[in-house]
Amino acid sequence: MDEATKIAVIGGGSWATANVKMLLDNPTEKEIFWWMRSESSIEHLKKYKHNPNYLSSVEIRVPEQNISSDILNVIGQSDMVLLNVPAAFLKEALGQVSAETLKGKKIISAIKGFVPDDNMIIAEFMHHNYGIPLQDIVVISGPCHAEEVALEKLSFLTIASLDIELATRFANMLNTRYIKTNVSDDIYGTEYAAVLKNIYAVASGICHGVGYGDNFQAVLISNAIKEIKSFVDEVHPIDRDIKESAYLGDLLVTAYSQFSRNRMFGNMIGKGYNVKSAQLEMNMIAEGYYAANSLHQINKIYKVSMPICRAVYAVLYEKHSPHIEMRLLAEQLS
Amino acid sequence: MDEATKIAVIGGGSWATANVKMLLDNPTEKEIFWWMRSESSIEHLKKYKHNPNYLSSVEIRVPEQNISSDILNVIGQSDMVLLNVPAAFLKEALGQVSAETLKGKKIISAIKGFVPDDNMIIAEFMHHNYGIPLQDIVVISGPCHAEEVALEKLSFLTIASLDIELATRFANMLNTRYIKTNVSDDIYGTEYAAVLKNIYAVASGICHGVGYGDNFQAVLISNAIKEIKSFVDEVHPIDRDIKESAYLGDLLVTAYSQFSRNRMFGNMIGKGYNVKSAQLEMNMIAEGYYAANSLHQINKIYKVSMPICRAVYAVLYEKHSPHIEMRLLAEQLS
Repeated sequence: MDEATKIAVIGGGSWATANVKMLLDNPTEKEIFWWMRSESSIEHLKKYKHNPNYLSSVEIRVPEQNISSDILNVIGQSDMVLLNVPAAFLKEALGQVSAETLKGKKIISAIKGFVPDDNMIIAEFMHHNYGIPLQDIVVISGPCHAEEVALEKLSFLTIASLDIELATRFANMLNTRYIKTNVSDDIYGTEYAAVLKNIYAVASGICHGVGYGDNFQAVLISNAIKEIKSFVDEVHPIDRDIKESAYLGDLLVTAYSQFSRNRMFGNMIGKGYNVKSAQLEMNMIAEGYYAANSLHQINKIYKVSMPICRAVYAVLYEKHSPHIEMRLLAEQLS
Repeated sequence: MDEATKIAVIGGGSWATANVKMLLDNPTEKEIFWWMRSESSIEHLKKYKHNPNYLSSVEIRVPEQNISSDILNVIGQSDMVLLNVPAAFLKEALGQVSAETLKGKKIISAIKGFVPDDNMIIAEFMHHNYGIPLQDIVVISGPCHAEEVALEKLSFLTIASLDIELATRFANMLNTRYIKTNVSDDIYGTEYAAVLKNIYAVASGICHGVGYGDNFQAVLISNAIKEIKSFVDEVHPIDRDIKESAYLGDLLVTAYSQFSRNRMFGNMIGKGYNVKSAQLEMNMIAEGYYAANSLHQINKIYKVSMPICRAVYAVLYEKHSPHIEMRLLAEQLS
């Protein structure tokens, strides 16, 4: 690379803001373009160098002229496009974007979620709908809460791509004093695990809500990682160690976090809120809620035994009693 | 079994009390004999049917004449001997007990620790020092905090013995509404994992103490379970799934517990207390402190790469700076 890589970051939330911070703190030469929807956030960011709504303590020095709500302009200037909007809003965000717009660009997904209705992981969706070659796709995975990136707490990321050279190149754009990266070729396993973990975080919350303790929680999570392994081994059978931090670590940081939206949502469901009330009360959407449905649809093809995901689906979509469902689930765990 | 099994419980702490509660709540016919050192606790227990110092809310109806500080008498009347004193005090507790006393009896270990100086797990120690045939030994493993047993929160135990029939028979003496059991033939792996987890809980506390966050914690624990697997596979190479709740689950319940003595001890070390001050401040001994040393000695034979255990040893026994040691450790994790 003789020239600085041009990276378009698509999305203005906390994880996108954390990504921008890492990219800026890393010393390799690069130029960042940043798209977000909200004009007022853009104005604030240009004026005060802080994102007003997410990780607002972090100073962000992206050149003013590179921050824009014009997605075609932002993508047009870049070599790499880092997607970081909620999965549920991806189609809307890319409304004006065509296969032609993205042609020749590397796609980096930091999204953890299935595309609704299509029930696809992001790599698959971008491949099928925009003709992006799979080897031009990169997946960023944790374990990584954005809030700890803001605090510059040491965090590990896994950067996955079928093209290991590309993964390594992008990883080298992220490494900083507080970010260490692993490189992997498992884009499917990494993405699926990152999405599935949210369902298990909901399960964990439900169990807590109905009164199970830490002893059972440990059993639930041990069984969850076995479910994840069974599923990803079926969907994409390659040799992988599910104990790696991109799989097990990512599950742990989410399922054991008191601050996880998914766990909080599950907890409210376990305590007797219905889905609508829990969503209203939280004033946000737990990704695991949608993931549970998409996974249920996807698994009609693969038919992997996933009793925890099945139980979460039954509670959220079939109005089963959380108490009874979790008790029945416990009978299937070991 | 025509007659009721006679079980001697050796030890009066919270985990022993939880074991007695499970055995009593389980409907199979059995007679319990209970040894503890403290005469005043025995008097209290006989009079009020509660252990005054541990799980004191739990009603314990063991016949008065079966509770005694005379260990030979208690063991003499039993078919099975359930050992449940801290590993550091096992030799002292068994001071009067000979191989002859234990002849023909099944030994059940609920202890999680190496015997100091000998640096052996309990099964090995009882086999070598008392001539107990290995197939007469049973190991009880979690994930299981005693406090949640007191609250009758659903908990899973793993009962391991080379004699699966014996393991099953004993498991059937523990099952209740709130206790579910798995059976395993892996006495070595189960015991080693149960001891090693305390070292990782110390590590987890040290990391927290020096300022690492949840993101790093998840990486630490993912690497910890890999270390456990490498070690037990080297010591006792059988086919085992380290994601089972007896291994991974037991690690999780300890390393993620805010109430773990080992984690608390590590946290104080990470914050700058020296070992002596931390012990005085806590007024109790973290088992992981001793386990780190024993493991260090044992691993001189096996030479398994265990960077986390090595780092804990360096901090606790070689006075290395926790900050520097954890930073060096991070470089070895992925």
